[in-house]
Amino acid sequence: MTERVVLAFSGGLDTSVAIPFLAEKMNAEVVAVAVDLGQGGEDMGVIQKRAMDCGAVESVVVDAKEEYAADFCVPALQANALYMDRYPLLSSLSRPLIVKHLVTAAKQFGGTVVSHGCTGKGNDQVRFEAGLAALAPDLKVVAPARDYAWTRDKAIEFAEQRGLPIETTKKNPFSIDQNLWGRAVETGFLEDIWNGPTEDVYAYTADPAVPREPDELVITFEQGVPVKIDGRTLTPYQIIDELNKRAGAQGVGRIDMVEDRLVGIKSREVYEAPGAIALITAHLELEAVTVERDLARFKRGVDQRWSELVYDGLWFSPLKRALDTLIADAQKYVSGDIRMTLHGGRATVTGRRSEQSLYDFSLATYDTGDTFDQSLAKGFVQLFSLPSKIAAARDAKHG
Amino acid sequence: MTERVVLAFSGGLDTSVAIPFLAEKMNAEVVAVAVDLGQGGEDMGVIQKRAMDCGAVESVVVDAKEEYAADFCVPALQANALYMDRYPLLSSLSRPLIVKHLVTAAKQFGGTVVSHGCTGKGNDQVRFEAGLAALAPDLKVVAPARDYAWTRDKAIEFAEQRGLPIETTKKNPFSIDQNLWGRAVETGFLEDIWNGPTEDVYAYTADPAVPREPDELVITFEQGVPVKIDGRTLTPYQIIDELNKRAGAQGVGRIDMVEDRLVGIKSREVYEAPGAIALITAHLELEAVTVERDLARFKRGVDQRWSELVYDGLWFSPLKRALDTLIADAQKYVSGDIRMTLHGGRATVTGRRSEQSLYDFSLATYDTGDTFDQSLAKGFVQLFSLPSKIAAARDAKHG
Amino acid sequence: MTERVVLAFSGGLDTSVAIPFLAEKMNAEVVAVAVDLGQGGEDMGVIQKRAMDCGAVESVVVDAKEEYAADFCVPALQANALYMDRYPLLSSLSRPLIVKHLVTAAKQFGGTVVSHGCTGKGNDQVRFEAGLAALAPDLKVVAPARDYAWTRDKAIEFAEQRGLPIETTKKNPFSIDQNLWGRAVETGFLEDIWNGPTEDVYAYTADPAVPREPDELVITFEQGVPVKIDGRTLTPYQIIDELNKRAGAQGVGRIDMVEDRLVGIKSREVYEAPGAIALITAHLELEAVTVERDLARFKRGVDQRWSELVYDGLWFSPLKRALDTLIADAQKYVSGDIRMTLHGGRATVTGRRSEQSLYDFSLATYDTGDTFDQSLAKGFVQLFSLPSKIAAARDAKHG
Amino acid sequence: MTERVVLAFSGGLDTSVAIPFLAEKMNAEVVAVAVDLGQGGEDMGVIQKRAMDCGAVESVVVDAKEEYAADFCVPALQANALYMDRYPLLSSLSRPLIVKHLVTAAKQFGGTVVSHGCTGKGNDQVRFEAGLAALAPDLKVVAPARDYAWTRDKAIEFAEQRGLPIETTKKNPFSIDQNLWGRAVETGFLEDIWNGPTEDVYAYTADPAVPREPDELVITFEQGVPVKIDGRTLTPYQIIDELNKRAGAQGVGRIDMVEDRLVGIKSREVYEAPGAIALITAHLELEAVTVERDLARFKRGVDQRWSELVYDGLWFSPLKRALDTLIADAQKYVSGDIRMTLHGGRATVTGRRSEQSLYDFSLATYDTGDTFDQSLAKGFVQLFSLPSKIAAARDAKHG
Repeated sequence: MTERVVLAFSGGLDTSVAIPFLAEKMNAEVVAVAVDLGQGGEDMGVIQKRAMDCGAVESVVVDAKEEYAADFCVPALQANALYMDRYPLLSSLSRPLIVKHLVTAAKQFGGTVVSHGCTGKGNDQVRFEAGLAALAPDLKVVAPARDYAWTRDKAIEFAEQRGLPIETTKKNPFSIDQNLWGRAVETGFLEDIWNGPTEDVYAYTADPAVPREPDELVITFEQGVPVKIDGRTLTPYQIIDELNKRAGAQGVGRIDMVEDRLVGIKSREVYEAPGAIALITAHLELEAVTVERDLARFKRGVDQRWSELVYDGLWFSPLKRALDTLIADAQKYVSGDIRMTLHGGRATVTGRRSEQSLYDFSLATYDTGDTFDQSLAKGFVQLFSLPSKIAAARDAKHG
Repeated sequence: MTERVVLAFSGGLDTSVAIPFLAEKMNAEVVAVAVDLGQGGEDMGVIQKRAMDCGAVESVVVDAKEEYAADFCVPALQANALYMDRYPLLSSLSRPLIVKHLVTAAKQFGGTVVSHGCTGKGNDQVRFEAGLAALAPDLKVVAPARDYAWTRDKAIEFAEQRGLPIETTKKNPFSIDQNLWGRAVETGFLEDIWNGPTEDVYAYTADPAVPREPDELVITFEQGVPVKIDGRTLTPYQIIDELNKRAGAQGVGRIDMVEDRLVGIKSREVYEAPGAIALITAHLELEAVTVERDLARFKRGVDQRWSELVYDGLWFSPLKRALDTLIADAQKYVSGDIRMTLHGGRATVTGRRSEQSLYDFSLATYDTGDTFDQSLAKGFVQLFSLPSKIAAARDAKHG
Repeated sequence: MTERVVLAFSGGLDTSVAIPFLAEKMNAEVVAVAVDLGQGGEDMGVIQKRAMDCGAVESVVVDAKEEYAADFCVPALQANALYMDRYPLLSSLSRPLIVKHLVTAAKQFGGTVVSHGCTGKGNDQVRFEAGLAALAPDLKVVAPARDYAWTRDKAIEFAEQRGLPIETTKKNPFSIDQNLWGRAVETGFLEDIWNGPTEDVYAYTADPAVPREPDELVITFEQGVPVKIDGRTLTPYQIIDELNKRAGAQGVGRIDMVEDRLVGIKSREVYEAPGAIALITAHLELEAVTVERDLARFKRGVDQRWSELVYDGLWFSPLKRALDTLIADAQKYVSGDIRMTLHGGRATVTGRRSEQSLYDFSLATYDTGDTFDQSLAKGFVQLFSLPSKIAAARDAKHG
Repeated sequence: MTERVVLAFSGGLDTSVAIPFLAEKMNAEVVAVAVDLGQGGEDMGVIQKRAMDCGAVESVVVDAKEEYAADFCVPALQANALYMDRYPLLSSLSRPLIVKHLVTAAKQFGGTVVSHGCTGKGNDQVRFEAGLAALAPDLKVVAPARDYAWTRDKAIEFAEQRGLPIETTKKNPFSIDQNLWGRAVETGFLEDIWNGPTEDVYAYTADPAVPREPDELVITFEQGVPVKIDGRTLTPYQIIDELNKRAGAQGVGRIDMVEDRLVGIKSREVYEAPGAIALITAHLELEAVTVERDLARFKRGVDQRWSELVYDGLWFSPLKRALDTLIADAQKYVSGDIRMTLHGGRATVTGRRSEQSLYDFSLATYDTGDTFDQSLAKGFVQLFSLPSKIAAARDAKHG
């Protein structure tokens, strides 16, 4: 029986051409799987049809928008996930979900090989293959770009030779990845890290420098999950989608950075993630109000490690799962409202209120109603600083 | 012989009235010490004279602006010090330096007691007293506000009774602390955390929402120290001062947060730190370019711990000093230029270049000149994800 | 109505005399609560009667041995809890459970004050009062030794004056605390840290230097809980108790250390914890076999933080609870058998087997049956070391 | 010109046969480099001659014993380096030093290729190649066992065919690596992790179960460096060597564990490291006496990370170097005497004394001379536990 290759299909030139290429190269049938993660762009029906036109034996479209928002974006939000304090992990989050649906399709359609379009110098190959190793270790993996040195130029040539129904002329100078959680842009003139990004790099965000009216809103969280905007109950997908539009219209969420890839090199990346940045900003402040100090300090390290693990492709790892339990516990009381102003590229928290608040006006105020017993402070200060004091006396004696 | 009290003197109502109050209460002579940390405001000569007018036996003004910038702000910059990822530690940094000069004055003028104006529910009492415990454990400490429940109202009454040469009518609703590294505002209507700050809260920053022309500049670092703006060699003080003005004029560096105090309560704080935020933004990006990945990941935790220690008043502690050595080592190659645009409340890096860069175009590019050997990736990915793979197979078997 | 003081009652001189002392001093009734944590020594009925004889209005004995083992010792075991890598936290674990039963008694008997015998320089006052602050913030706390400078000498004098039914002649030179998880000894000649402990310091352990036959056993764990010894199903209490006897008979578990107290000083402590040390040794090795590498590396830091928190009296804190969730998740597959030899003060693992083992003979062996694909290693090694390589080249160029 | 291969030469069967094998296979000349790291065993002159007899063009012996002790073992001691809390890193420490001398030899003798005997599933390949990548990125690397699947059986066959002057009959069932810091044994029946080690596995340590007289000694440290035994000033090499003998004679330092390899698998390892374990035990206790609490707590995490990095082959990495600076700073006051008893497999500290001690008898004692002000404790306890208290009240209200 002919082997079947389950291909992660984006609808773009590379993976379209990969269909007949893989079929020939591996003497196999290709099952194309396109996953809708809210990336927008082309109609998913068009994409589905294109795969068949290119020779796929099956072409599947999975609407994973709500699943992506609830099971991938929300956990990232709860971890305040910003790799290197900046990158909201948008590509990193999407790959494990695509893997999950590839594995489902492989079971459904009898696939024994899985294929993806990643190169050998990026992070996404790791995310795909670490995910596959965890979920379906028996599936073989083929990455034409990496394993057969399959380049864009070769793909174009191949498409033209075979008369594939693909537009090969339009040349976007950038390599782009986008989904509900944001949009990534790399290569081109951005590879010179002294060059600043130009406006045409961006698609999810308007120019923050253009004067416009601010947009104020209230986001409601329940146990770390965003559940309402301005009092309207919405799904996580709807909330992120609405914030992408509203924060994007105010130029919020542009990121331009040099980043440490897992494969050991530094790369230049430009991101835009208006909804993600607005939500993380709000969530961080609600945590500041509702999470106890020692837990908050420790969680910062957990958040960082979570971000590194997910960046490094270890979504399905035991450590990631263990960190999830701690983060979930820390969200138990992260409920309440955050009022924000979106304007001029800034997402600014202006108010917070929560039934679960640990902010205690009567302890904090310097006005009438103060209940803090200042007489306790002297003993506290002296014992708190005693180890330093003893050490300083020793150090002074011994130089 | 009459005991001498060395008083940390700000020139404001509270510490002015404290001079005769302490003299009476403790039957002592008061030596006033005012430290210029670039806080601006009143002329230091006027402040010096006021202390004498209020009855001090000595009144000292210390110009510590350059020392503060070089020995306190620059280390904070190298640690990217943001307590709770937001607060640039401006009050925390200043107290240990004031302590140092109080101790010097105590030696010079025969002081045996040191006094400060902090209350018993804030962080600054700890910073003063932990510092004193380390530098001069023999000095006694008196904090009238905490130890004698000395309030503003009592101070005003006292001042009017004695006819002290102090203006007692002007009532600023806020409690303010400011110096070169930024400005802190608390109390008043800000104690209701649902209230947003109003424009009159701010003094170091213009309204970011007002349209204006952007300001582009290049900051040059040498081993983690900012040394030039736009090619002009400047001292750290001059650099921070210039950036306060230029970034402040663009509305950069406003922070509004709920914060975990060392004494165990949460408080609402509003800060503005235009120079600090611009510099930390630039420094973080230059580290991204010049610091190796594992070191960068580890340093993030060190930076956090450094910030917590300094926030908690442990500037002179053995752990703080040990972290300093690690941070200093990590700065060895943090040299180069960062181009930034200051505009609309944003400090945006648009370019970075460095002789010490670890960004390697030939490894990063997807274009001609690529030297990255993609054939290495397959083995890397498989062994990197092997522990997760083995664990996933086990977990699948055992549920 | 007369106020009631609920006293943590050990049956010893100090807390016995505290009964009439507190009754007088506070014009109150005293409810004595003795908690059986497997400390052995006097019969609990005798202790109960003594409290009444000393004037208590109620005297309660709580048998908390199984609860202590299951809910306090087992979590400590799962965290491999060794403060400063040595101290198995025996006193730290017991205090929160005593607090729990004091609070129960206060509710039952109408107590409004709680009293404990701790001094002001030890850790246990914090464990008591932090626990009470969390579980019953409305209860007042009185600690006679600390708050009324109530010393042993005063207690003896008081007892003799009143003719209390307490033996006041026997003088143990040491201060001792003991329960199921181990025994702590301090003060006396041990306060000179150059002095070694003498044999009379010890009660749970025989001299390890005496020649005797080794004792071999197999401990079975299920999800991190010890459930069997040599195939016999036992409760956690029974397992710890049996191991105290068997490991104690072999001199296992003596610890002599200088320790960092929470109140800021260093103190000398001698411990013996035969069952705890044997169990932790076994558990650590079973984790080595069943826990994935990254999780194991991270958990080491979690274990340390857990130990510090519990040592510091923060058993009921949000961070402790959050760490518990992570530790519990990590125990999911910590099941299997550990074979140990107890002999000459050593608890030595000699074998381990587990259905959930991640040790894979076919990957590990250098013999026939090796399935490890060595060809993957070259790529792995090169990309794994690439960041160091790039940095080394840069460093070489720039000195 | 013929290429020259610089071979890390142990004198054993595998690397002896590798000389003519590499010469043939690569059409190259082989330079053998044997490094004396105190491994004992054969005379280095005999080893040197054997390389020539097998066809090397040059045969170098480097006496690196003192360098190894001072620059590799002492830093490991200062980091209390125990990978997975057990393994003292003996093989991990030696490889970077061998690499250093291979690079020196390559420069001296015109080598362009470096060769080592490691397989593709162990850690040592990474330590060699990561070190080479850092020190001499231009050198090519050949690992016959990994790259040419060169096995022991093939080596024996090759040796017999060519009549090489090597004994091929004696079959040690174990794979052994040994040097001054300890001895590692693996493979054979130990690959079944339920099997306990037999006495013939050990060579550095006597059976701890045999009754014998204890050995008491005093080790003196200066700034974390061991400098004397029983008052005799010795070099680090001499100290480790003497302790290997004396602690080894008492059966100290046997370790039997399942270990997480860098290449992603778990393996069974048996180690004996009498000197290392005795020294680390002594050093840990001296740190407990002389290092301030917060620094000590933080250093524990640094020590763990240092151990992981060195285990993972990243000796020459920027992070390792940065951790070194922190560890060095922490050693500044780690000076003084530790008295130890070596007996029955145990290395037990019985006394410690130090001019730099932070243990303060007058603060610690419960006897006459107590200077600790217990009245400070109440305020300390209340503010220290305030965050937990506020959180507990909130949690109680909200379930």
